[in-house]
Amino acid sequence: MTARVAPEQVRTVACVGAGVIGGGWVAYFLARGYRVRAWDPAADAEARLRTLVDTAWPALTELGLAPGANRDNMTVTSELADAVSAADYVQESAPEQLDLKRRLLADIDAATPDHVVIGSSTSGYGMTEMAADAVGGHRLVVAHPFNPPYLIPLVEVVGGTRTAADVVTWTAGFLRHVGKSVIVMDQEVPGFIANRLQEALWREALHMVANGEATPAQIDASITDGPGLRWAFHGPMLTFHLAGGPGGMAHMLDHFGPSLLSPWTRLDAPELTPQLRGSVVAGTEEAAGEKTIADLVRERDRRLVDVLRVLGKVPGGS
Amino acid sequence: MTARVAPEQVRTVACVGAGVIGGGWVAYFLARGYRVRAWDPAADAEARLRTLVDTAWPALTELGLAPGANRDNMTVTSELADAVSAADYVQESAPEQLDLKRRLLADIDAATPDHVVIGSSTSGYGMTEMAADAVGGHRLVVAHPFNPPYLIPLVEVVGGTRTAADVVTWTAGFLRHVGKSVIVMDQEVPGFIANRLQEALWREALHMVANGEATPAQIDASITDGPGLRWAFHGPMLTFHLAGGPGGMAHMLDHFGPSLLSPWTRLDAPELTPQLRGSVVAGTEEAAGEKTIADLVRERDRRLVDVLRVLGKVPGGS
Repeated sequence: MTARVAPEQVRTVACVGAGVIGGGWVAYFLARGYRVRAWDPAADAEARLRTLVDTAWPALTELGLAPGANRDNMTVTSELADAVSAADYVQESAPEQLDLKRRLLADIDAATPDHVVIGSSTSGYGMTEMAADAVGGHRLVVAHPFNPPYLIPLVEVVGGTRTAADVVTWTAGFLRHVGKSVIVMDQEVPGFIANRLQEALWREALHMVANGEATPAQIDASITDGPGLRWAFHGPMLTFHLAGGPGGMAHMLDHFGPSLLSPWTRLDAPELTPQLRGSVVAGTEEAAGEKTIADLVRERDRRLVDVLRVLGKVPGGS
Repeated sequence: MTARVAPEQVRTVACVGAGVIGGGWVAYFLARGYRVRAWDPAADAEARLRTLVDTAWPALTELGLAPGANRDNMTVTSELADAVSAADYVQESAPEQLDLKRRLLADIDAATPDHVVIGSSTSGYGMTEMAADAVGGHRLVVAHPFNPPYLIPLVEVVGGTRTAADVVTWTAGFLRHVGKSVIVMDQEVPGFIANRLQEALWREALHMVANGEATPAQIDASITDGPGLRWAFHGPMLTFHLAGGPGGMAHMLDHFGPSLLSPWTRLDAPELTPQLRGSVVAGTEEAAGEKTIADLVRERDRRLVDVLRVLGKVPGGS
């Protein structure tokens, strides 16, 4: 068995599945200077993929291409083995169907050299269930990106029960090296983290439309002109850390905790036990690091001004 | 009864309650060139309020002050009647306690000239229950801002059963004139729109912390480096309109609809009936307006590049 190449020595990436997500990965890896070998069973896969890469390229160019980045570094092949056999890393982005993922991951595993890590873009399945048919379950890992993968930094990395710990570490290291913002999860949870949060919001939105409480346009405006402006730089925890004034998250939970019992959404809240309160306060303070509430308020205001200006959302006034 | 002044003729605004939200309103109205009369029962209210306005002023200055805007246009008084009797509009931002709001709104109503509209910053109560003790229920209306009110444009406007239709219209007109992004809701729903969506996400986040599925820092990173980057300009509806490729929201619902049954969050989804599917597709297409999916993809990429650059989230690369 050949030793795994170091994350910074990866030169060739195979992208299996070249739809919106897989094609987005192709564009990203090309922009970071990699050779990409892509496979997709669709007859017009290559044409669609080239269009997708061309669409993404201006944005990637504006953010700055890595040395040697070139759209010509892409090879599209109709043989799966031809795509993965020479790769230092494989990213699977097939449609979100469990049977299909299972079969495909087993096929990829069979055709890929033993030392190569295989990541899956699945948006919600755990690797334990997806790896069921694959021999090499130890090197199969979830690496879940967000749309468009060529611009959104987040990738959630989590293994299944058979995934080797060093495979999780290697994947996180490689994707960070490539410029991604990586969250390594300790346990498999359906939907991982961001999709669970996003899905809760989305389901509440669907309930509101179903009940005639809000239109799709109102739902979108309520986010883009409201909390969405903060979420690009402060997550829900830091946001509420600032909502309580100088007392921070502790004051916020003690003060607004009762609103968890309010019918403000269809999702019941957990009981705010002293333990949960402690975890949220400690974790938020750890996330805030050295920054005081006053620092965070200044940071929030500076970034909000930047975001408002760059998006043209400056108050018109009288 | 004196006639209501036109929205563009308002000169003096009373802000009742000068904490984080009320003080934020004060700063915003001052920056838009209004005279502000503020009342708060706290002994150190004036000092805290001046600090809050001073903290907000640099950001407001950078976004552009209205002609005549001046921090000296603020008067802090210890008499409620003194604050509201000369106002053309009253914004109440007292702590979120129903009894307190009821009593205070009745007091404000009694001390404010008949023709003046009184808005409440409540983050979740309906005006029907808050106006219970007030004589002038017809001119009481919810005008719910987001923190910080001096930078976040959104204000949700919704009346109670006694609120006059023209009061809702006037309030929306005045706040739009002042530079706010206003959503007028047809019916009272606890938490209105944005807080319901935000609260669903927040509750799912608390469940994840309670179950050891994610830390507060992971939750924040999953939003700020993931979907939060899009939500500053495309809401959940337009986001999913783009997730399905050229087929848009219709394709997305038909394709990913089954994931509504997945355990991706603790909130159950509504049944995706043909009627709900129709409302979501039609409403999203209306929100998209003339823009094709390709237009929206270009818009998304351009804005994502702008937001990533202004926040310094550019991939480091190798």
